[in-house]
Amino acid sequence: MTLMEKAKAGKFTAVMEKVARDEGVSVELIRKGLAEGTIVIPCNPRHKKLEPRGIGEGLSVKINANIGTSEEYSDIDVELEKLTTVIKNGGDAVMDLSTGNKISETRQAVIENSTIPVGTVPIYQAGVETLQSGRAIVDMTVDDIFKAIEAQAGSGVDFITVHCGLTREGIEHLRKEGRVTDVVSRGGSFLTGWMLHNEQENPLYEQYDRLLEIARQYELTLSLGDGLRPGSLADATDRGQIHELLVLGELVDRAREVGVQTMVEGPGHVPYDQIEVNIKLEKELCKGAPFYVLGPLVTDIAPGYDHIVAAIGGTKAAAAGADFLCYVTPAEHLGLPTISDVKEGVIASKIAAHAADLARGNKKALKRNKEMAVARKALDWEKQIKLAIDPEKARKFRKEHNTEERDVCAMCGQFCAMKITEEVLRKK
Amino acid sequence: MTLMEKAKAGKFTAVMEKVARDEGVSVELIRKGLAEGTIVIPCNPRHKKLEPRGIGEGLSVKINANIGTSEEYSDIDVELEKLTTVIKNGGDAVMDLSTGNKISETRQAVIENSTIPVGTVPIYQAGVETLQSGRAIVDMTVDDIFKAIEAQAGSGVDFITVHCGLTREGIEHLRKEGRVTDVVSRGGSFLTGWMLHNEQENPLYEQYDRLLEIARQYELTLSLGDGLRPGSLADATDRGQIHELLVLGELVDRAREVGVQTMVEGPGHVPYDQIEVNIKLEKELCKGAPFYVLGPLVTDIAPGYDHIVAAIGGTKAAAAGADFLCYVTPAEHLGLPTISDVKEGVIASKIAAHAADLARGNKKALKRNKEMAVARKALDWEKQIKLAIDPEKARKFRKEHNTEERDVCAMCGQFCAMKITEEVLRKK
Repeated sequence: MTLMEKAKAGKFTAVMEKVARDEGVSVELIRKGLAEGTIVIPCNPRHKKLEPRGIGEGLSVKINANIGTSEEYSDIDVELEKLTTVIKNGGDAVMDLSTGNKISETRQAVIENSTIPVGTVPIYQAGVETLQSGRAIVDMTVDDIFKAIEAQAGSGVDFITVHCGLTREGIEHLRKEGRVTDVVSRGGSFLTGWMLHNEQENPLYEQYDRLLEIARQYELTLSLGDGLRPGSLADATDRGQIHELLVLGELVDRAREVGVQTMVEGPGHVPYDQIEVNIKLEKELCKGAPFYVLGPLVTDIAPGYDHIVAAIGGTKAAAAGADFLCYVTPAEHLGLPTISDVKEGVIASKIAAHAADLARGNKKALKRNKEMAVARKALDWEKQIKLAIDPEKARKFRKEHNTEERDVCAMCGQFCAMKITEEVLRKK
Repeated sequence: MTLMEKAKAGKFTAVMEKVARDEGVSVELIRKGLAEGTIVIPCNPRHKKLEPRGIGEGLSVKINANIGTSEEYSDIDVELEKLTTVIKNGGDAVMDLSTGNKISETRQAVIENSTIPVGTVPIYQAGVETLQSGRAIVDMTVDDIFKAIEAQAGSGVDFITVHCGLTREGIEHLRKEGRVTDVVSRGGSFLTGWMLHNEQENPLYEQYDRLLEIARQYELTLSLGDGLRPGSLADATDRGQIHELLVLGELVDRAREVGVQTMVEGPGHVPYDQIEVNIKLEKELCKGAPFYVLGPLVTDIAPGYDHIVAAIGGTKAAAAGADFLCYVTPAEHLGLPTISDVKEGVIASKIAAHAADLARGNKKALKRNKEMAVARKALDWEKQIKLAIDPEKARKFRKEHNTEERDVCAMCGQFCAMKITEEVLRKK
């Protein structure tokens, strides 16, 4: 039985209990969410060190950080350092998107060292290995794709992105309507190239049952990818994107029928005023499946600051109901992130998730936030630093921006409003 | 005649024409907005280098950067470097909040060197000079306050924050309801202390006509401050805050009657889900007066990253109708900002303003944003860097995150989705 089947059968498991404890909710809430498909807990039993966490309705907002090598930068130790950085700064999941040398070895090392769920996009490996064998990506066979999926599932991956909703009809929508940035999903572009060249339907769509069988066997959570997600604000919420979402909704149904956990991926580059409709649409069309958004990025003009751009869009998305935010680093659109970029990306994304948790009335988040306000009012600097999202940085700033240790800070000094008011209000 | 009186009389002036050109709107739209009070153009004729800009309905969202010395850090050259940084990175206004030595000299230097409007909070100088003369802040006389205002207006300040809506009734609301962080506005705390100690009403409220007379004489725009703005999310949208807003609405009416330009200041620390109601409330109670918000900050737990927190809140606020965003730097709650903090604060705030402009359908913003998407699709790196909000940083990242100059970037390399799709879509 899969985890979802157990939940449907009314069983409580250790994984459900662990997640319920972490979230401060009842095990029944978790079980019901899993059974209905509004909560997922990616947890491949082959991932030994995993401390599972839940994603979805009624839970705190989670964040994912992408790491992984590329052809120019391919060093497993660097990726492991990124992993450590993600975990240390509160990342809830990590995706290894390696396309460099030693894809399998890198993934294995990440899984072995990760306490948080690990995701991948298996078609990258299928594509890269096709190229390495001297063929073009369009010559990749259907078996190449499914073999990569099964091998990754077998190695302990907890969730995979599969662009099952990208169909020839979707591509026709894109081609007819026209786009500024066409396709920006790497997996989406591999499949688009493959489908157009071979004049065939997407094998992940046509042979979806084969995929579900693998997912059942390995307790693999499917993250249904959005191959036609917009790559610029101008392309947002267009026919190609929405067509794919319609297809994904049907595929969610089919996965739920056979007890496979699914979440749905969403954009991408979206104007601020279109974010809410994107979230509501996914929740309706995909019947409450957890929504995993990439950003969203609310402007195209801020390379070097896309972590901030994504935090703006991510807060809006999560406040409107998105469940899982993929971080964006300052290096986005410019190059592969360094370790410092990874940290900046995780923190910005955590801020977005926390701000949305507060807006959604999450009790643990409200409690922590209020504790900080109380410490701030008391001018209790040690407590403020301890409660800060990044205690190291808070301490460094406090040290560098003040000439001496005082109860107030150098911004207002003796004119600290809280101090002045405390004195006059309490005196009277 | 004041600028507002000219607008009411149906006159077009060079200032109105300049702002209309910058915004790409008709002069009539500017004139009408000025006449009705939904647009302000802070422009003290004594500020010689000023290139005026408009703030309010139908215009692009503007941002302000606070600079100024404090008792621990008091160097005019550093403040001028901050000013240069603000202007270079697209700041639309600057407030000199100096409380260190040489307040007048610092302000004079800022005004002389600034092409953007300069604002101040005159009660800081009144308070600091009272202390310097050996008296306590509560011993400040009413004349001390008005003399500081008139001296600053005479020196060429374009707009001033005056906490005229803070009344004894408001303080009673605060005291009865209770707060976590009481008063966090410095000006608000000076006045609260003064009012409670002297058992008198706020002189800026009681003698508001005297203030209006100075404003008329010097073409000074009043920024009606929120002395009771919340200093933590827990205190947001409480009775003290809303009471003050009620009073400010009445004071906006009185200013408009005599041709004085006013805007209204708003919070502060506000949960994400309460931002929109705060904006709508101001727009209703203050009859469309331009709304100048400080942040808002959507969580209390991110010292070191409050520029990001403010960008999240600022986008939401501006998308809902706020007109003017006060930046927050990474040093907020920890110390006085350095030059690098000022830059980070300005950029984060500009991103928020731009994202909101896009959501509000601002044509210039949409055009620039689309140009970037087109350049990105064309893999035209020089154009992307040129269009970037911070070309220097974009160029630096591009250089540091790639081992060689290529058409693609090191994140995806040969697996660049846009490149792959371009080839297959155009080939077929």
